Amino acid sequence: MSAPSRRFNVAVVGATGMVGQEMLRVLAQRRFPVGRVKALASERSAGREFPFNGARLQIEALDESSFEDVDLALFSAGADIALALAPVAVEAGALVVDNSSAWRMKENVPLVVPEVNPDDVRESEGIIAVANCCAIPLAVVLNPIKQAAGLERVLVSTYQSASGAGRSLVEELEAQTKAIAEAEPPAVAVYPHQLAYNVVPGGWKPVAEGYNEEEVKIATETRKILHQPGLRIAATCVRVPVPIGHAESVFLETKAKLDAAACRDLLARSPGILVEDDPDAQIYPTPANVAGKDEVYVGRIRNDLSASRGLALWVVSDNLRKGAALNAVQIAELALEMGVI
Amino acid sequence: MSAPSRRFNVAVVGATGMVGQEMLRVLAQRRFPVGRVKALASERSAGREFPFNGARLQIEALDESSFEDVDLALFSAGADIALALAPVAVEAGALVVDNSSAWRMKENVPLVVPEVNPDDVRESEGIIAVANCCAIPLAVVLNPIKQAAGLERVLVSTYQSASGAGRSLVEELEAQTKAIAEAEPPAVAVYPHQLAYNVVPGGWKPVAEGYNEEEVKIATETRKILHQPGLRIAATCVRVPVPIGHAESVFLETKAKLDAAACRDLLARSPGILVEDDPDAQIYPTPANVAGKDEVYVGRIRNDLSASRGLALWVVSDNLRKGAALNAVQIAELALEMGVI
Repeated sequence: MSAPSRRFNVAVVGATGMVGQEMLRVLAQRRFPVGRVKALASERSAGREFPFNGARLQIEALDESSFEDVDLALFSAGADIALALAPVAVEAGALVVDNSSAWRMKENVPLVVPEVNPDDVRESEGIIAVANCCAIPLAVVLNPIKQAAGLERVLVSTYQSASGAGRSLVEELEAQTKAIAEAEPPAVAVYPHQLAYNVVPGGWKPVAEGYNEEEVKIATETRKILHQPGLRIAATCVRVPVPIGHAESVFLETKAKLDAAACRDLLARSPGILVEDDPDAQIYPTPANVAGKDEVYVGRIRNDLSASRGLALWVVSDNLRKGAALNAVQIAELALEMGVI
Repeated sequence: MSAPSRRFNVAVVGATGMVGQEMLRVLAQRRFPVGRVKALASERSAGREFPFNGARLQIEALDESSFEDVDLALFSAGADIALALAPVAVEAGALVVDNSSAWRMKENVPLVVPEVNPDDVRESEGIIAVANCCAIPLAVVLNPIKQAAGLERVLVSTYQSASGAGRSLVEELEAQTKAIAEAEPPAVAVYPHQLAYNVVPGGWKPVAEGYNEEEVKIATETRKILHQPGLRIAATCVRVPVPIGHAESVFLETKAKLDAAACRDLLARSPGILVEDDPDAQIYPTPANVAGKDEVYVGRIRNDLSASRGLALWVVSDNLRKGAALNAVQIAELALEMGVI
């Protein structure tokens, strides 16, 4: 941001969580013009201190009075808290950017990925939603393809890291990894199955027809972000023993022909994307390399040999950053530029 | 097998490898009517002893004279050795069952998955090939669906374990896991990227159009096993930090409508398949649970909501057993029943 005169009081709701902490880091790294910063969490954490922007920040207990004088409230505290307190924050005059699933599919709530549908920010009535951590990078990659050739159908198989389920699963993965290294049986408590040395096609809440919440989110949110309610899309979601970084194996069909070479060129000059694609040299993105990065990485771009207008892609992004915190702060930056805050 | 009078001299070529060792275990577990067993490997390993069937077996150095008096030669020593020595073994009077890729796509070599195309064993001219470790379980699952409704198109994203690349990658994964547990940087030598705490969409030899050898094998071998040369099929192959057990996320389209419930019933009564599919109870197969098992496990059976005749499935099998050694011994059993040995 080019030095603005105004500074904004920012509340981070769920400041002790992995995404909340990342939100604070991203605000500092991107020099968001913060005034007072309130780190809000449950009463249990109140009083704890941690470093922020060269100073120290103290956790305050979240309640209905937390939003006085707050201009921007970044929520990452789960759907129940967002449902209850986002309207309170809006009432107090804050713009809410919510990372939970609570508001995403509501008609009067924009679901924004800044590279894809920035103008939806203007429709805000006080709450803007951040999409699911797999839907965001998927939309970043699908949008230029849709603009160039139209989208017919999308099939996604995910490779999702432990941090998507929060710190408790990252810690369980670490504990299981230590157990395996010491030839001890790994304990399973947080997730329904052992994650270390395994891959688990579940752990999310079942919804209907055998699909779980995560798979439904990827389908419905991608349609909303892309403004294509009729997009044919299905997903199979799988948790993998990786701490940070979600990957997606995508097969898609376009309306007009777009071959792999043209798609590679297109994606390489599209916003928010970094193409890493030289399979002869074993160059393609992996979660371990993408963790900590801001861009959505794409590799293994191929013509899907099973369809005349099909493409196969491999998409990787940092689920805590572009999949959550970074996307939230980018929305706030847009809102600021557009005068929505 | 019901106690046959005849016993067969069996050579295992590549007896020190993970698949070779598994072949010996499977021969013993299934009480294959072995006479003399020759464990063949490189000169370097000759003389080493290991337990077999309650006795001890000594590794013998493999050479052109190794196949005298051998009735059955199970090869798992890579394509170069299979190309050079399988004809020598046939010439000496042995039936060769080869686990490498060397002979799979040759016209006069049957590529057999016993649950799918057992009668192809009769076409043998001395060599029968065992398919790729992902193609085998895929064919086991696709075949009943093809018989019931016809197959139009298959899209596969794999989650393949380290043992698919041999013992050296399993050991590298173990070493990397120990390093991570001790907060040391994991060393990368065997595979092009760190595998522990990561997923890697490559490591196989590049072929053409951005596809690698593994992805091409899955497509071409599945077509051959199913006797459907025109099957539209594409794959994206990914290595995951799991020691044993390959998983596959499959989206497929049938010619006639077959819904998820009917597909579940069908697969549950098909040979070599075990259905584990109760997502409400978080029941689905995972590699950690399937390692050591003989069946191909299927779960997450759903209607693909993006297609009118589409299905989504999750397939897991032990890549060393059904994906290699067990399938090889099952072929030998068939050959024996059919009088081909």
